[in-house]
Formats: sequence, C-alpha cells, structure tokens
Amino acid sequence: MSRGLFITMEGPEGAGKTTILQKLGNFLGGLGYNILLTREPGGIPISEQIREVILNKENTEMDGRTEALLYAAARRQHMVEKVIPAMEEGRIVLCDRFIDSSLAYQGYARGLGMEEVYGINQFAIDGVMPDITFYFDIEPAEGLKRIQTNDNREVNRLDLEELNFHEKVRVGYLRTIDKWKERFIIIDASQEIEKVFADTKTKLLEKLDKCQ
Amino acid sequence: MSRGLFITMEGPEGAGKTTILQKLGNFLGGLGYNILLTREPGGIPISEQIREVILNKENTEMDGRTEALLYAAARRQHMVEKVIPAMEEGRIVLCDRFIDSSLAYQGYARGLGMEEVYGINQFAIDGVMPDITFYFDIEPAEGLKRIQTNDNREVNRLDLEELNFHEKVRVGYLRTIDKWKERFIIIDASQEIEKVFADTKTKLLEKLDKCQ
Repeated sequence: MSRGLFITMEGPEGAGKTTILQKLGNFLGGLGYNILLTREPGGIPISEQIREVILNKENTEMDGRTEALLYAAARRQHMVEKVIPAMEEGRIVLCDRFIDSSLAYQGYARGLGMEEVYGINQFAIDGVMPDITFYFDIEPAEGLKRIQTNDNREVNRLDLEELNFHEKVRVGYLRTIDKWKERFIIIDASQEIEKVFADTKTKLLEKLDKCQ
Repeated sequence: MSRGLFITMEGPEGAGKTTILQKLGNFLGGLGYNILLTREPGGIPISEQIREVILNKENTEMDGRTEALLYAAARRQHMVEKVIPAMEEGRIVLCDRFIDSSLAYQGYARGLGMEEVYGINQFAIDGVMPDITFYFDIEPAEGLKRIQTNDNREVNRLDLEELNFHEKVRVGYLRTIDKWKERFIIIDASQEIEKVFADTKTKLLEKLDKCQ
C-alpha cells in the first residue's frame, strides 16, 4: 500500500464498538500490521482545548451550530496532527467515531440538517474520508439496557426521552449508510461480543483481500 | 422597523474603521437610535474561550482550516447571544468586522478558498447577513504606513511580506464586494478622518431614507 488505511467505527451507545476497536487493534497488530488506535480529540493539545470548551459545564448557552463547528475544528486538527501523518507512514488507523457520528447525532437527531453538518465536515476533512466504516447495529433500547445494566433503575421520563433520541440517531446512521453504501460494513451488534468480534474480523479480512 | 438593522464595518488595517464605528455610534445615538457597538468575540464567554484557543501562542501547530472553523464557531455564538437579541429589540447593530473579513483574510489571502470559507460561515450565520456593509478602502501600503507611523523603522522583509499579504486581502475584499454589490457602501478611506466620517454619515442616511 502506498498509503495507509483509514477505518472508522460507528454505532449507537452500548453497541460495543470501543471494545471491538481494542480487540481488532490487537488482532491486526498480531498479524504484523502497524496500527494506530485513536478517537477525537486524541491527545492533540488544540483539539483537547476545543473539547474543553464543548464540555465546560458553565457553557449552558452553547448553540447547536457553535457546538457542531467546534467538533469540526477539533476533528480537523486531530486529522492534521495524527490521522494523516499515520496514514502517510502506511499505518492502519482505527478511529472510534468520526464524521458519521456528527451526521447522525447533530445533523439528524439534533435537527441541524445532515447536508449542513456534512458541509462543515467536508471543510474539516478536506477529502480524507474513511476507507472503511464499521456500523455496529443494535436496537437503541437494547443498547441503552446494556449501558444501564448495573443500575436496576426503573424506566423514567428521561430514559424515554433518551430512547427517542437514540432511535433518531439510528435513523440518522441508516440514512448515512444509504448515501455511502460502498464504504460501510454493517455488523449485527446484538450478538454476544465474541461473535460480534468474529464477524468484524471476517468482514475486514475479506475487504482487505479485495483491496490488495 | 419590525426588526433592527445589522451594519458591519470592513476594510484593511489602518483604514480607520474602528474610529469611524465609534463616531457613527455616537452620531446615531444622538439622533435617538438605540445602538449596539460590538466586535467578535464581544464579551460572550463561549466566544471568548474560543478566541483564547485561537490566540494561544503555544498553539503553533494550528491548521488554517481549524482556525477558520473556530472563527466561525465564535461568530455563531456572538450572533446568537448578542447580535440577534439586539436586532429583535429593534436596535441598530454596528459590528467591527464580520463575514467579509473571513472571506478576504482566510478565504482569499490565506488561500483556503472563498467558497469554502463562505460555506462554513453560512452555517454559522444561518441566514442573518448584514443589511449594510461599509468597506473602507485604502491602498494597503498607505494603511500600513498609518499603523507604523510612530515606529520610524525601515522597511524590512517582514513589512514587504505584510504588504504582499495585505494586497491580497484587498483583492479578496473586492471580490466579495463584486458578489454582493447591493449590500456594500464603499468609502474612500485615504481621506482625512473627518471627511471619511462625513462620507459615511451621508451615505448611511441616504440608505436609511431609502429603507423607510
């Protein structure tokens, strides 16, 4: 390969993608691939400073568009300082969440508009789209149950709001997939984690074979 | 007026626009108009935090696109918390630099692309464009001379680079004006400041008459 490979992992909360990312990194590392595991802001000082502004609890007035522009800015700097240099060294970059999260969460579920959020992200990534994106699909109710599994709390209004929001996130993801079918690999994440991992490995190796 | 008026002041360094903004604010206030004088980040905490990231001297790695997204984010929040509420109260907002500065400085002079920078700013302003924009035109060499007037330093390489950059900024402005002729009022800023102010007043009152 003259250029590395850029793989992103997407999905709703509780789909297990972070666990799979780690396992996949270990597996590919064992095969001799040079791997970079990352997620924004990824320790890049400028991106971390931007994330601090986003997460600052005193910033209760933050507008949704301001937030989307800040995420895009943090993404840009993470790309320039971490993802692109790794790809230039021929490494495989595995990134936990990327542009599709912005499209699903901010563009669709928060209602800013998918085309609009895509526009500012196009500016941020300047043509460097992922080569492969795994979408770990799970019913939002199932995903949330996994996260809350140790809480034993009753379903309350907040949970219902959350569920409604995560249903929207899933619709946002499905629309994104519809736009870029070629790039996506959909994994059934409702299975046991070892089966999810096995499916991910198999599909990735198939794809890597095709690319060579 | 059912909605206030949004007036922006643009031009290269040394054109005197900040002085004119103050004078115009006093003049319009004297006529009984309710005025807001502002410039980004304008004391809005979120915008000030974003500006701190931009101006942090340790952030030497900052990419031009990251910077442009951060400016757009700071602009958005300043709009939402300051400009739009003032306009909803029927006030006249006088803003020192706005979208055209981004187009001229970042889009054209820094080479990011005017269309691209316009795209992220469209997202930020969400349709709230200035009603009137004053462009204070001056030869870049003349503007820089005004700023440096108390330095008595010789022209060195940096100044020449600066001059070249500011020549580009002016071209960027002229292209922007070409795109939105209706919105712009061009003032010859090479004149004495009192004459510049007199021209600004006259042209603004003509425009306000037309709007009523």
